[in-house]
Amino acid sequence: MPFTAPVAEQRFVLDHVARVGDLGVDGDVLDAVLEGAGEFAAGSWAPLDRVGDTVGARWTETGVIMPDGFRDAYQAYVAGGWGTIGSPEAYGGQGMPFVLAAAVLETLGAANMGFALLPTLTVGAIEALLHHGSPEQQATYLPKLATGEWSGTMNLTEPQAGSDVGALRTRATPRGDGTFLIEGTKIYISFGDHDLADNIVHLVLARTPDAPPGTRGLSLFLVPKFRLNADGSPGEANDIRVVSIEHKMGLHASPTCVLSFGDNGDCTGELIGPEFGGIRAMFTMMNNARLNVGLQGVQVAEAATQRALAYAAGRVQGARNGADVAIVEHPDVRRMLLRMRAQTMAARALVYLAAAEVDRAAAGDADARARLDLLTPLAKAHGTDLGNEVASLGIQVHGGMGYVEETGAAQHFRDARITPIYEGTNGIQAADLVGRKLALDNGGAFARLIAEMREEAAAAPLRDLIDAVDESGRALLRADSDDRLAASYPFLTMCSVAVCGWLMEREGRIAASGNTPFLRLKAAAARFYVEQIVPEALGLRAAAQAKADVLYQVDAATLAA
Amino acid sequence: MPFTAPVAEQRFVLDHVARVGDLGVDGDVLDAVLEGAGEFAAGSWAPLDRVGDTVGARWTETGVIMPDGFRDAYQAYVAGGWGTIGSPEAYGGQGMPFVLAAAVLETLGAANMGFALLPTLTVGAIEALLHHGSPEQQATYLPKLATGEWSGTMNLTEPQAGSDVGALRTRATPRGDGTFLIEGTKIYISFGDHDLADNIVHLVLARTPDAPPGTRGLSLFLVPKFRLNADGSPGEANDIRVVSIEHKMGLHASPTCVLSFGDNGDCTGELIGPEFGGIRAMFTMMNNARLNVGLQGVQVAEAATQRALAYAAGRVQGARNGADVAIVEHPDVRRMLLRMRAQTMAARALVYLAAAEVDRAAAGDADARARLDLLTPLAKAHGTDLGNEVASLGIQVHGGMGYVEETGAAQHFRDARITPIYEGTNGIQAADLVGRKLALDNGGAFARLIAEMREEAAAAPLRDLIDAVDESGRALLRADSDDRLAASYPFLTMCSVAVCGWLMEREGRIAASGNTPFLRLKAAAARFYVEQIVPEALGLRAAAQAKADVLYQVDAATLAA
Repeated sequence: MPFTAPVAEQRFVLDHVARVGDLGVDGDVLDAVLEGAGEFAAGSWAPLDRVGDTVGARWTETGVIMPDGFRDAYQAYVAGGWGTIGSPEAYGGQGMPFVLAAAVLETLGAANMGFALLPTLTVGAIEALLHHGSPEQQATYLPKLATGEWSGTMNLTEPQAGSDVGALRTRATPRGDGTFLIEGTKIYISFGDHDLADNIVHLVLARTPDAPPGTRGLSLFLVPKFRLNADGSPGEANDIRVVSIEHKMGLHASPTCVLSFGDNGDCTGELIGPEFGGIRAMFTMMNNARLNVGLQGVQVAEAATQRALAYAAGRVQGARNGADVAIVEHPDVRRMLLRMRAQTMAARALVYLAAAEVDRAAAGDADARARLDLLTPLAKAHGTDLGNEVASLGIQVHGGMGYVEETGAAQHFRDARITPIYEGTNGIQAADLVGRKLALDNGGAFARLIAEMREEAAAAPLRDLIDAVDESGRALLRADSDDRLAASYPFLTMCSVAVCGWLMEREGRIAASGNTPFLRLKAAAARFYVEQIVPEALGLRAAAQAKADVLYQVDAATLAA
Repeated sequence: MPFTAPVAEQRFVLDHVARVGDLGVDGDVLDAVLEGAGEFAAGSWAPLDRVGDTVGARWTETGVIMPDGFRDAYQAYVAGGWGTIGSPEAYGGQGMPFVLAAAVLETLGAANMGFALLPTLTVGAIEALLHHGSPEQQATYLPKLATGEWSGTMNLTEPQAGSDVGALRTRATPRGDGTFLIEGTKIYISFGDHDLADNIVHLVLARTPDAPPGTRGLSLFLVPKFRLNADGSPGEANDIRVVSIEHKMGLHASPTCVLSFGDNGDCTGELIGPEFGGIRAMFTMMNNARLNVGLQGVQVAEAATQRALAYAAGRVQGARNGADVAIVEHPDVRRMLLRMRAQTMAARALVYLAAAEVDRAAAGDADARARLDLLTPLAKAHGTDLGNEVASLGIQVHGGMGYVEETGAAQHFRDARITPIYEGTNGIQAADLVGRKLALDNGGAFARLIAEMREEAAAAPLRDLIDAVDESGRALLRADSDDRLAASYPFLTMCSVAVCGWLMEREGRIAASGNTPFLRLKAAAARFYVEQIVPEALGLRAAAQAKADVLYQVDAATLAA
């Protein structure tokens, strides 16, 4: 299936949701970037999506090998400057808004989701170094990371430390020369090894000697795959072993590595930021990474929708009003396809809205920073939930053909399923929302969002939903920890749909003034969203206002009775 | 993970939902069957679940080969009489209720879902022969099918004829000796070939010469893999070729075959029932098969839930109230697990309720027949939707471990995804509900169900939901075809949750009078269902009452713009 980047939709959402006009990018430049990225992704990355799944990344004694074609496609990405869009000009980047870089990344990932995880991770490493690296570290590493000549990783998880990051044990021992000896095993390291870039910059959370327990004892280290020569070029290999790669259900183009640091007592790393500044630095790289995982929901939703639309338009089966028709004409298939369209648009609006706040926050807008913090768990969790829903609908539209691997619909479904898990499970996002984000500015960030939505929202069910979110959110601010957490996930979903409904209604209103095919589709999808999806979320009010006692009526042993 | 059949739960639902006491089975016999099936499934079939997935059925030149261990396990199933539970005593069966046979099949499928599809299909062949076969056909085939010595298949789909069965082209030409020459290609034939049984009885929909077009020109044929010798034993091979098996996302233990009949002009079949009686016979086998696919939803939900509970009880991560705890203690994980429990129970209640109506209808109860017809699309579609939801939650509870194949959580998720597709997609079920089933007895069957639910239901949200279902259903009875179909799926879900809520509330009320761990769990799950899941379904009212125009605002080309 030929992939086509949704350029008109991306531009529309950039204009009317992200309001990129305020961010100082010329409209012609926007179009050129979106169209160029679309052409590149469709021509270079999309054709590798299936081999990425069927062959996948392979572990060998000497490192991970990517399938044929990936190296050329990655070099073309580097040469085309697609990695540099959002990086600072001081380090060879183009200095364009984060939200535009996100749109480009969306296009790459819709063409090839597993592959696009590589630049996604590099963005995280760039963020960490930009905010916490020394000038020397920035000068040495950022130009290479900005272009993608070198890639980045995030090394957090250990077997006993998943969602509980504070439990990790990897050790960092000063060597007396300013560097540290790194020793430990990290798991679930996406693109922890590969043969596409000239070096890999591992950012590793570890514990210095006598560090306090828990998260406050963590420090962040830069551990290159190849140590640098005096001229900055990659030299001898560091002491890092790729133990294995995971046998995953999907996302096979992305090698998920177990990395062992310091097997031979000679793994060198350098501290990024202050000692014990690890958790703060981690959140720096993680927050934008969370948005980019929400963006993966958009990617897979877009790809699954395009594939299902193409199939449904070509598959003739059954009759409507007496004539044989393609299945796209049947009401329930049409419902699924319009829902896929609407949910994909909603996810994109939510993620772009948050991504634009990255740019506003970087420009010093404190409200934007708080808004970004509030929206990040919504964008990550709801964006990925929608990616999964849409990918599942994509299988259903294909009928039996969706369950056989040849159509590619199943791959989207398998690929999508990791996104509600990594970068903080969606349950962790919900906990973050009710535990930290609601309380920002004493509830002020949440209240401002509610007020802004209320001012614009017109449809009755949308206004009802906003009221329900407001009422539930204020109750959660006063609730005890168990009650807050018990209601967190339904509240997160309800809150996300309210934001999406607010944005979709706005988009529909603007689209109604035009008459291109895209604008008519947008208006139709917006109406469907407000009339059918918004009321569904109202059904979550009971759960979002329930207490924890319903969950603890029986103890854990009885739950397994 | 050791599988344990949920015997207390099955017995409870048989007693209080299926009301099996009216069906003339002794309680001790019930317990013995449920416990015996549980032990057999846990000891013999569950250990093969993983090899069924990883090795899977393999195509060879000479036929499909099942993984090591399956033949012995199948022979043990035959020898143990597990296939004979529900078959008539006249043909060597035990003549016990269909709903009890369903409970046994549930246990087998929870232990090994792909494997259990084999007896599921045999049940369909038995039904077709019981109702439409000649006395000779019944005497020849039923005793072998009842034990499982021979297995059955259903051959409907062709490449151009999926949901549109009337488009099929396979030809059946009289040979002058009472038999027919069968020629054509069938796809998606589950267990279309394998090496477990001594013969395979293919039931094949085909078209006789000069048959009218569409479904009314179809006839059903019995086409054995091996023709029978004079003594009834399997003899020479019939002219049937296994062209290939599908490369599916899951359910790898079930070979999904492309079968070519009559490549060499020598494939012999015999007519079952009258010429042009094919579609009626197909519905006979399909209706109970649809219940059994709904039951597959229960199977995979039960298996996924047991696996997630075991993982969550053993995985220590994070703290609650200051102490390190297993993740089952965290509110949002607890919410997922209780939801899995509640949804699994709900699916079981719905499917058993319908299955018991099979028994009552067979005993001549006309209301039960209409109730069964009404409930079948709910049981199939909502049962399988819940199987998918629960399997997905099972992955989420496992976190990153859910996405790697070793834990088995991913297998459930992959296995489950076919069930909303085959035996009539869930969209077809929704169309059947609003197009045919609502109108049974001029809406009388639906009205009686509503009245019975209303009489018993107590909780306010449940009563509201029943009102919404009633109001929506009556409106759909008057609606035109497009409007009916546009609202069909949300209506089906809302209606299913109302039935499940009614049953779960009853179960909870009964459970409240006891104090065993199982009864306390049941009461807790019932409360969760009524308080949180029932209100969610109310959120579907808008979609269940919407018109088709929202779907057709833009044409198909614009939808793909």
